[in-house]
Amino acid sequence: MQYRVAIGPSSFAAQDKTPLRQLESCGIEVVPNPFCRRLTEPEIMEHLKNIDGLIAGLEPLNRRVLSAFPKLKAIARVGIGMDSVDIKAANEWGIKVSNTPDEPAQAVAEMTLAALLALCRGLVPANAALHAGKWRKAIGTGLIGTKILLVGYGRIGRRVGRLLRIFGAEVLVTDPFLSDSRLNNGERPVTLDEGLSEASVVSLHASGNEAILGNNEFRKMQDGVIILNAARGELVDENALIKALENGKVSSAWLDVFWQEPYHGRLLDFEQVLLTPHISTYTRQCRLNMEMAAVKNLLRDLGVGT
Amino acid sequence: MQYRVAIGPSSFAAQDKTPLRQLESCGIEVVPNPFCRRLTEPEIMEHLKNIDGLIAGLEPLNRRVLSAFPKLKAIARVGIGMDSVDIKAANEWGIKVSNTPDEPAQAVAEMTLAALLALCRGLVPANAALHAGKWRKAIGTGLIGTKILLVGYGRIGRRVGRLLRIFGAEVLVTDPFLSDSRLNNGERPVTLDEGLSEASVVSLHASGNEAILGNNEFRKMQDGVIILNAARGELVDENALIKALENGKVSSAWLDVFWQEPYHGRLLDFEQVLLTPHISTYTRQCRLNMEMAAVKNLLRDLGVGT
Repeated sequence: MQYRVAIGPSSFAAQDKTPLRQLESCGIEVVPNPFCRRLTEPEIMEHLKNIDGLIAGLEPLNRRVLSAFPKLKAIARVGIGMDSVDIKAANEWGIKVSNTPDEPAQAVAEMTLAALLALCRGLVPANAALHAGKWRKAIGTGLIGTKILLVGYGRIGRRVGRLLRIFGAEVLVTDPFLSDSRLNNGERPVTLDEGLSEASVVSLHASGNEAILGNNEFRKMQDGVIILNAARGELVDENALIKALENGKVSSAWLDVFWQEPYHGRLLDFEQVLLTPHISTYTRQCRLNMEMAAVKNLLRDLGVGT
Repeated sequence: MQYRVAIGPSSFAAQDKTPLRQLESCGIEVVPNPFCRRLTEPEIMEHLKNIDGLIAGLEPLNRRVLSAFPKLKAIARVGIGMDSVDIKAANEWGIKVSNTPDEPAQAVAEMTLAALLALCRGLVPANAALHAGKWRKAIGTGLIGTKILLVGYGRIGRRVGRLLRIFGAEVLVTDPFLSDSRLNNGERPVTLDEGLSEASVVSLHASGNEAILGNNEFRKMQDGVIILNAARGELVDENALIKALENGKVSSAWLDVFWQEPYHGRLLDFEQVLLTPHISTYTRQCRLNMEMAAVKNLLRDLGVGT
């Protein structure tokens, strides 16, 4: 029998057709996203008719949707987050759900280094000044010997730690699930409080939806600290961060994730904050690897050999 | 006897007094730069009176100047370039001249990575758009598998090559003085023409004052190539670069060095060109290391034990 697979993400195979070819070469009939944007609930209800498997973006796959399609066998998320899928309902209906947690690590780690180096060397203000005709040589900070606290030491935190050590930084790590044996690049395990009081850079690579950095934590930090958040907006208390920027406790920051996205909040007014629109995984290589991994997961869960 | 040492660079020990303390702890009388900027010829003529050694910036140390101070025993440049010193005249007068070629390598390599990552991930336009309220997710390029040609494989080129390999890039190297045995990070030796035709990034780390990249070389490159220059402005033909930017051959570029500095030329109008005011060595760590190395060289050449 021929399986029918629906595509959720509008960007699927947009840069490179290989993931699509892979599905087709296994005899799969592929039903593309007809709207070229994220599907709403009524649209996904339409899109999933007579479908066996879904390559999923962030469309709402709640209990109502999943209950309507008993024929659906597998959902393969292109990405890490599973908040958009009601896992319990999927289990009840025997729908296998997968994600691609490994592939984004390199792209996110690379983006974290890009942002940190840009802030340490003043790339954005130097470039803006020179384009405006002003030749201003400001002194920056190199990574050698700089104390950097990583909050969270999963797939991404570990890669960031390894890269920072190669650049000569002193890396402190705090993670409730940390076993010292995993620190094999010379990182030093610390409590959150120890790390906050010592580090001149604090970089978030944790999961969860609770604020880790609030007024109390900012007070414990070094004056002029740099904050990096490539993880989740909720990990930082927005008002506390704004206060810390205003009183100079935080000298600069990079945020790729926000409390609400698209973000249009007060941080737009702070030019010392580097803002990117949740694009840490947006490299051609990473998107292709995530899509290929999702295809592989889907074929496995449909029981289709490759 | 007590030696008297004059300081040339106005920024010497500005961030960290250790180099100054080191001189003083050896019984040296230090004469600071009285002008807090680069000295002109008449000023350096005044500054060198009754001086035994000079910690030198880029003040003009030509034959006229050196001939006027037969008592001068040693010149220690804080930096790599020796164009400001008439080495032949110094030799004739028995003045020992040193520089600090090792210390800047890490800072320049780090800045090259910073600029490359910023261009590959579109940091500057993404940040500008989001600060203006526009949430635009553009796809970028990661370093994994990206072909990068290094032109020049000295102290800096080697460090850039090692870092790029760690990020997973495919690194091509061209250098007339290259022996393959020095390529120990998996770089591939190529001719300039081979490299230009294959690479999607060309990064200059060569010496010399002749243009390496002119109209002919740009024609041979991949469409959409990225150009990086942390070495010397003269290595790129400015008009040829502007033409290649206008016709799309070059998609973006980073320049930290220019044909004339301060630079106020036509590239200011190209927003896809990241411009920095010759600050690749401007980190606190690098400046301190260069100053400490210059002090060490000067003490050695004056025959003062430490």
